Amino acid sequence: MEGVQQMIAGVGYDKVTISMETKVYPVIWHEDRVLLIDQTRLSHEYAIVEIKRYKDMARAIATMIVRGAPAIGIAAAYGMYLGARDIQKSDRDGFLAELKGVAEILGNTRPTAVNLFWAIERMLKTARETSVSVSEIPQVLLAAAQQIQAEDLNTCQAIGDHGLAVLPKTPEQLNILTHCNTGSLATAGYGTALGVIRSCKAAQRLGRVYADETRPRLQGAKLTTWECVQDQIPVTLIADNMAAHCMKLGLIHAAIVGADRIAANGDTANKIGTYNVALVARAHNIPFFVAAPLSTVDFRLQSGEGIPIEERDPKEVYQIGSTAICPPGVEFYNPAFDVTPAELITAIITEHGAVAPGDLKNLMVHQC
Amino acid sequence: MEGVQQMIAGVGYDKVTISMETKVYPVIWHEDRVLLIDQTRLSHEYAIVEIKRYKDMARAIATMIVRGAPAIGIAAAYGMYLGARDIQKSDRDGFLAELKGVAEILGNTRPTAVNLFWAIERMLKTARETSVSVSEIPQVLLAAAQQIQAEDLNTCQAIGDHGLAVLPKTPEQLNILTHCNTGSLATAGYGTALGVIRSCKAAQRLGRVYADETRPRLQGAKLTTWECVQDQIPVTLIADNMAAHCMKLGLIHAAIVGADRIAANGDTANKIGTYNVALVARAHNIPFFVAAPLSTVDFRLQSGEGIPIEERDPKEVYQIGSTAICPPGVEFYNPAFDVTPAELITAIITEHGAVAPGDLKNLMVHQC
Repeated sequence: MEGVQQMIAGVGYDKVTISMETKVYPVIWHEDRVLLIDQTRLSHEYAIVEIKRYKDMARAIATMIVRGAPAIGIAAAYGMYLGARDIQKSDRDGFLAELKGVAEILGNTRPTAVNLFWAIERMLKTARETSVSVSEIPQVLLAAAQQIQAEDLNTCQAIGDHGLAVLPKTPEQLNILTHCNTGSLATAGYGTALGVIRSCKAAQRLGRVYADETRPRLQGAKLTTWECVQDQIPVTLIADNMAAHCMKLGLIHAAIVGADRIAANGDTANKIGTYNVALVARAHNIPFFVAAPLSTVDFRLQSGEGIPIEERDPKEVYQIGSTAICPPGVEFYNPAFDVTPAELITAIITEHGAVAPGDLKNLMVHQC
Repeated sequence: MEGVQQMIAGVGYDKVTISMETKVYPVIWHEDRVLLIDQTRLSHEYAIVEIKRYKDMARAIATMIVRGAPAIGIAAAYGMYLGARDIQKSDRDGFLAELKGVAEILGNTRPTAVNLFWAIERMLKTARETSVSVSEIPQVLLAAAQQIQAEDLNTCQAIGDHGLAVLPKTPEQLNILTHCNTGSLATAGYGTALGVIRSCKAAQRLGRVYADETRPRLQGAKLTTWECVQDQIPVTLIADNMAAHCMKLGLIHAAIVGADRIAANGDTANKIGTYNVALVARAHNIPFFVAAPLSTVDFRLQSGEGIPIEERDPKEVYQIGSTAICPPGVEFYNPAFDVTPAELITAIITEHGAVAPGDLKNLMVHQC
């Protein structure tokens, strides 16, 4: 961590505009640019990528330099500002038309996480509705992006509190399984599912995290364990296929995951393998929680069937480092997400409270 | 495959003592030595390891140069011969005592697969019961090892036939999920679970194999896909955590796995992740089969609780190639096997027929 802190200091992390309540921030506004932790290079290398143009932000989202549904939303919001400040048009209609083009390019990066579209839409709305002069719109957008980021920090801490309240009362020390990375790296800086785990630890109720490695991109192995080590959260890494065995041995008391998109009925799209975790948790009567900001809920979708599932490059499956581990002639399937049906979910934990999936629609009033 | 055949010819694979009914043989007796395909280097490299001494065979088993329960048994049987031919004792008791020492070293390699102990015990019994002179015992043991190997080929083909008979009747073209490698590489040369798939293909009923990559050692990705490509079996590789999603999409009609040890009640120890597959298959009403020779059944154990589960080096989980993907401070858990309870198993397919787990004991009479 010392080395990390030196690197942070080296890129101006000490002058950031957001508070330092946790040690890890994936998206930082610094002077005139966005600093991203390059999450494709963790945990063996901590590197910062500087982004000054919106197309570079789109590329960073598509290549998963920044990933995690809330963090993608924040990154895209800053991307909207970066795009806006380069627009040359001085008439309002022309400016808004070009901004729409920026929105389209930023939106065409990852199809599943709804936070991306939510953040872009909120930025467009801000631009449309502001009464300032055209030349001042970019500054308004920068403030709006920073607002989204600050709200996400508060949202995550509220999720943590509400999550803590619905965790099992026994045993006193809970071992919690999580999948993929839903921590500081995936948000503004506290985490959704991992935020609940942080709150659990703060309440001295955490035994240990069991982190699924989360094939094919290994976000659990590379990101979650790294974050846990930074913040002294005890963590055991397992391969995804070991979770059922661990549950059978009684090693796990609850499972908490994040979400990329939640339909109105509670069906939840999240990182591939989440559905698997939900099924094996149910088979062992272990509660299974989804933790996500309300912005992740897509109330326009009645069920999970309407959620588009991104398919990614097969190389993610067959290539280890730079080596292909399969011979030519093999077919591949690499869905990046799956959909967990609402009936397998004990509660959905949002910043406005934890609810049974069937009661999700009661929270609709809070969604702006 | 052409390159592979040239390599086979180069090491005398064309003069082997067993028939060439399939293209892949993990264990070959050749002149005065055993040839093993180095399964730790597949699929990116096809290499043959020559074994002339029993301690080298023990090392090859422990390091998984040869793996797969039946193949381990065959390798250990040859290992017993290699040990026997180096024994200097001319008195029967002294000879048998030293052979027992060989058996112990070969047995101390992998704790879970019962075939290892079964083969070693059969070789010891052969040595004890033969009426030939002490100097001729090694030759009897070589014949016994070759007999075990030849029997396994026949056993696998019988398993294939019996398996085909109990596969779902619809759809006409079955997509079958398998886990780990249970093919030619894991046996004398046809396969158990993958043998059933071969028989299914021969009967023109195979749509496609879905191969779980099988973390942490990736036997599915590295071995099963390689074998399938050699023998023109259509194969799609997926990460382990994608199986449930594929089942939900209707892509999979049956799951077949092998076994390392089966208790009398049908509880089955097999490669870690098998239990996970059984649970998600059950959740989708997809039949789940175990295919294994009867020698895999340990009738002394009433249930799976008594099966020892090997834990392997955590490096298998946290190291990709030569790179550690986790920071210091992370804990690891790396069980090599799990136990699938009998109630999740549709049928256990042996060379003496496919039976419901509860009827397994009816086959006990066939076990020598």
